[in-house]
Amino acid sequence: MGRVVSPLEDLDEAPRQGDEGAPEAWIEFDPEIAPAAAQLERGDHLVLLTWLDRADRDVLQVHPRDDPNRPLTGVFSTRSPDRPNPVGLHDVEVLEVDDARIRVSGLEALDGTPILDVKPQLGRAETR
Amino acid sequence: MGRVVSPLEDLDEAPRQGDEGAPEAWIEFDPEIAPAAAQLERGDHLVLLTWLDRADRDVLQVHPRDDPNRPLTGVFSTRSPDRPNPVGLHDVEVLEVDDARIRVSGLEALDGTPILDVKPQLGRAETR
Repeated sequence: MGRVVSPLEDLDEAPRQGDEGAPEAWIEFDPEIAPAAAQLERGDHLVLLTWLDRADRDVLQVHPRDDPNRPLTGVFSTRSPDRPNPVGLHDVEVLEVDDARIRVSGLEALDGTPILDVKPQLGRAETR
Repeated sequence: MGRVVSPLEDLDEAPRQGDEGAPEAWIEFDPEIAPAAAQLERGDHLVLLTWLDRADRDVLQVHPRDDPNRPLTGVFSTRSPDRPNPVGLHDVEVLEVDDARIRVSGLEALDGTPILDVKPQLGRAETR
């Protein structure tokens, strides 16, 4: 499919959400799926789905935002990356298109993270 | 993980989006991951991620909404269920919680569709 190319290389430096200071990143698509990305354009608002391959899939409950004062909470009520199926959801804007890769706004995924899927954010019914 | 229990059994009768007349559905979680769902409550607004197991994963371009008058478009610019990694994204509200299952508002996924993940919709930073 593709992967994230980002200056973020360390879990400890990754912000928790894309709007909390995450850097721009490139998404590189594999050549065989490039036709699926052919109409992506600068200015598109996308939902990027990633596979958070450095997450701990055995975690079912966490203290939200690693704050021990907050009670243990089932991960389905949190955005913890550690969860049984660690799919990352990222709202991004396309800043640049260069063949089979796109540059996107603030993305909190680490360098090398696999891309699962890309979808347009849902707008008016006629653009669906 | 879990699966969708829904009266929708046929692709031809499924609406294209949850807000286009989809029925309520139950989400049944497998017992071993129930702790991840322990804090889900009536009124929660969730993003449900499903694996659209009846989708065609070889499709890279489609006529949006099956309208032949619309030009062939890369699936990353559409919400077509047919795509290389057919992950469904569904905004739902929890209507009822019954042990390790929840009833949710309009869901356009077919009966038996596997659940990949459940996340809260992102609201204010302090609730993340």
